[in-house]
Amino acid sequence: MFIEPKVLKGFRDSLPEPEIEKRGFVERIESSFRSFGFVPIDTPALEYAEILLGKGGGETEKQVYRFTDNGGRDVALRFDLTVPFARFVAEHYASLPMPFKRYHIAKVWRGENTQRGRYREFTQCDFDIVGINNAASDFEILLMINATLAALDVGGVTIRLNHRGLFNKFLTRLKVQEKSVEILRLVDKLAKVGRSAVLRGLTEIVGDGSAKKILDFIESKGGFEDVLAKVTEMAGGEAAVPVQRLALLYKFMRDDVGVASNSFVLDPSITRGLDYYTGVVYETFLNELPEIGSVCSGGRYDNLAGLYSKESVSGVGASIGLDRLIAAMEAIGKARTRSSYTQVAVACLDEEKAGVYQGIARKFRDAGVNCEVFLEKADKPAKQYMLADKKGAAWIVFYDNGVYTLRNLKKRENKEFASVEEVVKAVSQRCV
Amino acid sequence: MFIEPKVLKGFRDSLPEPEIEKRGFVERIESSFRSFGFVPIDTPALEYAEILLGKGGGETEKQVYRFTDNGGRDVALRFDLTVPFARFVAEHYASLPMPFKRYHIAKVWRGENTQRGRYREFTQCDFDIVGINNAASDFEILLMINATLAALDVGGVTIRLNHRGLFNKFLTRLKVQEKSVEILRLVDKLAKVGRSAVLRGLTEIVGDGSAKKILDFIESKGGFEDVLAKVTEMAGGEAAVPVQRLALLYKFMRDDVGVASNSFVLDPSITRGLDYYTGVVYETFLNELPEIGSVCSGGRYDNLAGLYSKESVSGVGASIGLDRLIAAMEAIGKARTRSSYTQVAVACLDEEKAGVYQGIARKFRDAGVNCEVFLEKADKPAKQYMLADKKGAAWIVFYDNGVYTLRNLKKRENKEFASVEEVVKAVSQRCV
Repeated sequence: MFIEPKVLKGFRDSLPEPEIEKRGFVERIESSFRSFGFVPIDTPALEYAEILLGKGGGETEKQVYRFTDNGGRDVALRFDLTVPFARFVAEHYASLPMPFKRYHIAKVWRGENTQRGRYREFTQCDFDIVGINNAASDFEILLMINATLAALDVGGVTIRLNHRGLFNKFLTRLKVQEKSVEILRLVDKLAKVGRSAVLRGLTEIVGDGSAKKILDFIESKGGFEDVLAKVTEMAGGEAAVPVQRLALLYKFMRDDVGVASNSFVLDPSITRGLDYYTGVVYETFLNELPEIGSVCSGGRYDNLAGLYSKESVSGVGASIGLDRLIAAMEAIGKARTRSSYTQVAVACLDEEKAGVYQGIARKFRDAGVNCEVFLEKADKPAKQYMLADKKGAAWIVFYDNGVYTLRNLKKRENKEFASVEEVVKAVSQRCV
Repeated sequence: MFIEPKVLKGFRDSLPEPEIEKRGFVERIESSFRSFGFVPIDTPALEYAEILLGKGGGETEKQVYRFTDNGGRDVALRFDLTVPFARFVAEHYASLPMPFKRYHIAKVWRGENTQRGRYREFTQCDFDIVGINNAASDFEILLMINATLAALDVGGVTIRLNHRGLFNKFLTRLKVQEKSVEILRLVDKLAKVGRSAVLRGLTEIVGDGSAKKILDFIESKGGFEDVLAKVTEMAGGEAAVPVQRLALLYKFMRDDVGVASNSFVLDPSITRGLDYYTGVVYETFLNELPEIGSVCSGGRYDNLAGLYSKESVSGVGASIGLDRLIAAMEAIGKARTRSSYTQVAVACLDEEKAGVYQGIARKFRDAGVNCEVFLEKADKPAKQYMLADKKGAAWIVFYDNGVYTLRNLKKRENKEFASVEEVVKAVSQRCV
C-alpha cells in the first residue's frame, strides 16, 4: 500500500550531522581556492553523451548514466568534472581570461561497482590553471594542494610528485622506449603485487639488466635534491626538459620560505594511470593514514580541449576526493561533528508568545549570533535545556515577565538580565 | 572532425561572473537559514521513479527525466525538493528530532518548455519545519522569508498570505462548497483574465448573488486588521479555526517589534495551485518588480509523507526561486557583479621568481587577504595593472630587489615598502 521509502543502491541521503560536516569541508576548500584568486564555474549535470564520452568507450562508458531524453537526444550525467571543463573551455575560449584559474565543486555520477565503500554519486573538487605551461603554474597547484589540506586540518600530508616525461626519457636512454606501455603497466602495480613480481615481469620484457635499472630508477628514495640528482643522471643530464622543470620547482620550494622541507617528495614511481597527463603528476597522502590512498591527485596535460576545438590548451590541475577525505578524517578521529549551527536557543514557555520570542531572537541574529526559537512548550525547563544542548547551543534564554534568564548549558549556571540588549551583549562578548 | 562543444537546450554553463553572483546569493541565504537554527540535508539527484512520481502521472510525469539504469531500475532525476524530502522524512522518521527544521539548496531538473526564460536545470532553496502544527511555526517561516530576502538586499518585499481553510469556510457558508474546485480554478485566474471574466464565470456556476459575494471576499483590501475583520465576518466569526490561526499570526506580528507593518498583507485571493496545501499559504513579491511573480512561496501541508509511511507529518515551508530572483535583481539593476575574489595581485617580473612571489602571497593569505600571483611576465607594468584591475583587485604588489611597491589601482598611486610585513599591514588596514 505504501511505497517503500528507500534510495537507490550506491546512493545515500545526507542527514544533518554529516551534511554540516561536509559543508564545513567545502567551505574551507572554497575559501582556500578563492584566496589564490581562483574563480568558480558550473556546468550542467546532463550533457550530450557524445560530448562526455568522446570517441572513446571502454570502462567509462559502462559506468555512465546514459539515456535518451524526451526530445530524443542521447544524453548522460557527467562522470567527472574534467570532460565538461574541456568542453567549457572549447565553447567559451574567446571570453575566458588566459591563464584561466578556475575551481568547480560539484557532484558526479558513476554506476560503479559499489563494493568497498564506493558511491555512485559523489562530490569532486577540481582546480586547474589552463592556457599556460610553465613551472610557476605547476608550483601554484602544488602549493594549493598543500594550503587547502592544511586549512582542512587533516594533519600532515605528503605530496609525491614526478614528471611523466622523466620516465620516458629514461626508458629512451635504456633503448626500451617501444615497450613503455607494458613497462608502465607493470610499474604501476608495484605497491599492489610487490617488488619481486614486478622484477620478474620486467625481466621477461626487457631482460635482467634493464629490469634492475628500471626498478632502481622508480625506487629512488631520499630528499628531493638527492633523488633529483640521481634521476637527472639516469635520465640523461640537466638539459632534459623534465629535469629542468623539476629543478625549477625545487628552486621555488626553497625560495618560498613558507614551504616545509618535508611537504614535497620527488617519487619516480608516481605515474598516474590516466592517459592525458604529459608533465608533472602528483598524489597526496595523509601522514596518519597513507593506506587510504591519494586524497588529491592531478598533473599537467596538453591539449585539454582537443576533442572539441583546434585551440591547443595546456593546463595543470588537481582534484580533491572529498568523500574519501571525509572517510579518512572519520577513521583517524579528526572529524568535527555538530548537530546544528545554533548558538543560543530561546525557550518556549507559552506558544502564544511566539512573537515576543522571535523579537528576542531577532536581536541575537542582528548581532550575528545564530538563534533558534523553540516552538513548543515543554512541561519542564530541563527538557528545553536538553534540547538546546542536543542542538549544540551554548546558551538558552528564558523570558518571562520582563526578566531574561540566560543559562550557560556547559557551566549549568543561570544569570538574570533586565533587558534583551544586555543578554545579547553578554552572549556576543562570551562573558557569561 | 571536432565534436561541437555545446550544452543541451534549456541548460547553461555558469561563467565566473554569474557563478560568483549566484554563490553570493546562496551564501547569504544559507547564513540566514542557519541563523534561525535550520540544518542542511541532502538527497540523491537520482531516485526510483516510483518514489518521485508516486501513483500520479499527468503534467509532472511528462517533464521528468526518467530512464532505466544499467541495473534495470526505473529511475528519475528529482524535479523538486519536496518529494525527496517527504521520502527522506518517512525513511528517517525515527532518527529526526521533531520539530525538524531543515533547509535544502540544490538543483532540480524538468524537461519543460524552454520558452520565457525557463531552464531545464535550476536551483531551489527550500526550508521547512515539520512535525508541528501551530501558529508559532507558521510565523517563523514567514519571518524567515522576510529576513532572508532582506539579507539579499532585494529592496522591499510584500508577503501576501492567506489561509486555505478560510475560503473553504466561506464557500460552506454560501452553501456552494460542492463547487469549490471549479470556483477555485476561476478565482486563480483573476490576475490573468480580469475581473469581469471571472464574475461571468462565477455567475454561471453559483448565480449572480453568490458570484458577487465571492469576488467581494477575494478582493478584500486594506490593512491586515481590516481585512481580517471583514473575512472573519464573512467566513462565520471568530470561532473558525483558520480565523483563529490568522488572528494569532497577526498578534505575533504586533508582539515582535521588528516586523514592519507593511511587510505582511492578508490577501484572500492567494490560494496557491498545489493540492497539498491545507493551512496558511503565501507568496512574496518584490516591491520594485511585482510583475515578475512570486520569488518565494509556500504554505502549510498535512501528511507530508503519506505516500511512504503511516506517520502523519504536518509541516510548513517555503521555497525561494533563486533563478527568478537573480533575473529580477538584474532587471532592477541591483545585481552585484565581480569577476573574482582577488583583493591583491602579486606582479610577475620574472617567471623564475615564482617561489618568491608565492612567499609574498602567502603572507597576505595568512592575514585573510585573497591574493593572486600572476604567472606570466608582461612586457610593461601597465599590462599587469590592467589585469589586476580586471580581476577586481584593489592593489597590486611589485617586488624587485628587496623593495615592495604597492599600487592602489583606484587611486593610481604607488607606495614603497621595505618589508612584506609592512605591505600586508598596509593592505589589511586599508590605509594605503
